Amino acid sequence: MEAFFKLKTPDEVFNTINGFSPVGEEAVSLEDAFGRVLNVNLTSPEDLPDFFKSTMDGYAVQARNTFGATESLPALLEITGEVSMGEADNIAVESGQAVKIPTGGMLPADADGVVMIEYCSLLDEKTLEISRAISPLENTIQPGDDFKKGSVILPAGKHLRPQDLGVLAGLGFLEVPVFRKPKVAILSTGDEMVPVSQTPGPGEVRDINRYTLGALCRNMGAVPIYMGICSDYFEPLREMVEKALMAADTVWISGGSSVGTRDFTLKVFETLPDFELQAHGISISPGKPTIIGRAGGKPVIGLPGHPASAFVVAEVFMTRMLRTLSGAMDAGHDVHTVKRAILKRNIPSSGGREDYVRVRLEKDDENLTAIPIFGKSGLISTLVEADGLVRIDMNTEGLYENDTVDVMLFSHA
Amino acid sequence: MEAFFKLKTPDEVFNTINGFSPVGEEAVSLEDAFGRVLNVNLTSPEDLPDFFKSTMDGYAVQARNTFGATESLPALLEITGEVSMGEADNIAVESGQAVKIPTGGMLPADADGVVMIEYCSLLDEKTLEISRAISPLENTIQPGDDFKKGSVILPAGKHLRPQDLGVLAGLGFLEVPVFRKPKVAILSTGDEMVPVSQTPGPGEVRDINRYTLGALCRNMGAVPIYMGICSDYFEPLREMVEKALMAADTVWISGGSSVGTRDFTLKVFETLPDFELQAHGISISPGKPTIIGRAGGKPVIGLPGHPASAFVVAEVFMTRMLRTLSGAMDAGHDVHTVKRAILKRNIPSSGGREDYVRVRLEKDDENLTAIPIFGKSGLISTLVEADGLVRIDMNTEGLYENDTVDVMLFSHA
Repeated sequence: MEAFFKLKTPDEVFNTINGFSPVGEEAVSLEDAFGRVLNVNLTSPEDLPDFFKSTMDGYAVQARNTFGATESLPALLEITGEVSMGEADNIAVESGQAVKIPTGGMLPADADGVVMIEYCSLLDEKTLEISRAISPLENTIQPGDDFKKGSVILPAGKHLRPQDLGVLAGLGFLEVPVFRKPKVAILSTGDEMVPVSQTPGPGEVRDINRYTLGALCRNMGAVPIYMGICSDYFEPLREMVEKALMAADTVWISGGSSVGTRDFTLKVFETLPDFELQAHGISISPGKPTIIGRAGGKPVIGLPGHPASAFVVAEVFMTRMLRTLSGAMDAGHDVHTVKRAILKRNIPSSGGREDYVRVRLEKDDENLTAIPIFGKSGLISTLVEADGLVRIDMNTEGLYENDTVDVMLFSHA
Repeated sequence: MEAFFKLKTPDEVFNTINGFSPVGEEAVSLEDAFGRVLNVNLTSPEDLPDFFKSTMDGYAVQARNTFGATESLPALLEITGEVSMGEADNIAVESGQAVKIPTGGMLPADADGVVMIEYCSLLDEKTLEISRAISPLENTIQPGDDFKKGSVILPAGKHLRPQDLGVLAGLGFLEVPVFRKPKVAILSTGDEMVPVSQTPGPGEVRDINRYTLGALCRNMGAVPIYMGICSDYFEPLREMVEKALMAADTVWISGGSSVGTRDFTLKVFETLPDFELQAHGISISPGKPTIIGRAGGKPVIGLPGHPASAFVVAEVFMTRMLRTLSGAMDAGHDVHTVKRAILKRNIPSSGGREDYVRVRLEKDDENLTAIPIFGKSGLISTLVEADGLVRIDMNTEGLYENDTVDVMLFSHA
């Protein structure tokens, strides 16, 4: 019981979280690679593009034939052919000649630039008038301009975006090596808990955490595995946790972690092989009664039972945990977007803990403002009204109206 | 051909986009409702919570029995029982009595507040010493505090977030009425185009747009339908577009929309029933040769063939189109997150069009900086390096180093 009050600070908890490892790897089809995390530095198997191509509709020429050309003194060239898309035509462009070429077309031999159609006019079927000079290579892409064979295309740990898939498609990757999606076993405990399909009797409530935590996992690219509701007794909970640990990469139990009379979560964790307690209580509000442990290398987590507290802890810490387990390394992919806003009311805070205060964002003339949502603890509607959280530092006694604050937007749209 | 040069401005295009309608509705299980868009104002079928409950571990009492209690002058109460979770115990709390209660427990009859366990100590098994006064209703939630029966829980047009699902779970919604996901038929045209599985011959390229556009759709909650690659001929393209229009809510053709010799996209669109041309060319760079039309109420789109241009147009305009088709109305759900950054280099721009310049974001001491990525048009690697776009207004001739700019982050993580 005493250990409960040796609370860990949020920074200590983040360090703990960084100590876990990604869950493993697999290959997926390019089709299914969107949003997945690369698990190797991918290098280019070929040059992209692999041919000398035009970036404009126009005429392929030898650039030096256009030098000095102006509207009043145009260059005259002989049209000797036309390039078709997707074909390597058997034409060369000699000095004094021009060959029609579409955007993306392959430059004929000996041509070294393309004059845009806007600067060309036909004197007759065979004679082209060019009113502007180009420099060599103008309006073209050379082989390897996008990626040279052997160069790193994308680094390990990168979340694959649509344009990243595009590059992989361009280079012919049919499969992509990625980290496996972490599987998260979600359990709710509490004798008062009934499934959503059931009408609660007196004193009973529906299982909310299953849905909030499950969707948060999906949003982070993890796969929730719903273990169901467990009664507040040691043996059934132990059995369910053991099963969960076999099925998943991490186990999250909500409920049962406050200093109540029936707090079995930690006791159950302590029966797991290779269990190591890493945090029993975190100095934040809401969310103090959170347990973080490691069993056989896998994170086992006890979250508060209150839906709002469980959700804040999940948003602040479990999103980071999922990011670590999924192997994501790209700094560009912050878990939370941060927006600056002007606080619209004082927020008091006790020192010695970090407060995460729900706020709603509103545009006020030109400024973004953050309106704290005060409400009794245990309500879930306050989360529904909120757009994000404002962190109040341990060493701060609160924030004042008109302070500029950083609002951590919720991780999902 | 002339019509091409009557370019629409981006604002005109946004107005056009707003003129389309959501694609329809369906009911999905709560499980599958994450990220979906509500299509009615949902009202609460019951009070949440539906009973008077404790938000703390402690003792349920009549608050007036604690008035004046301090550490030096505690109140003494008789312990007459204990509330179990999820049960409506048959106990009442009379004046002078206290009943032990866990967080979330149902208040016994006649109790009107809860004293936290921290302010209670046992003198003996039956006698409780209370060192702090509470006011009536303290540490409790009353029925309907979250939602009153009949009140609006969530408005139509709202994207469902994890916490929104939580509220719906708490109120017993097993199914949720949502807008259907828009289906997007994606076609690539071009004789030079080969599928990713095929090694390109001389002058050929792999079909990149299928993957960038498909992933962008998925990221926006839409369902891509891949129609494949079509050669640059009128009749095969017409047949494929007709098929696509039957199968999907919108048709996106990439390639074939520049003023080339083989521009059949518009000609094919013009054969569709009830076709109405809305934009043939947009005054932006990249992306000028974009076609927007309406056929039988459905948007039919011709995107540039260049992967980078097609992607910028999709990011700027098609994300908004998908948002409109998916029925999303919530202002909080902006398509693009905007970040302020300090520009690290001059960017020249011609007037009369909007430029969308790719930039990379970097932290520089305390500031976020935006580094323009210059590169030949037609390269896709510039998109891979970029984190977002900086818009240069029509009436601006460029931006200067050290200007503060708004960076529109790409819509996907």
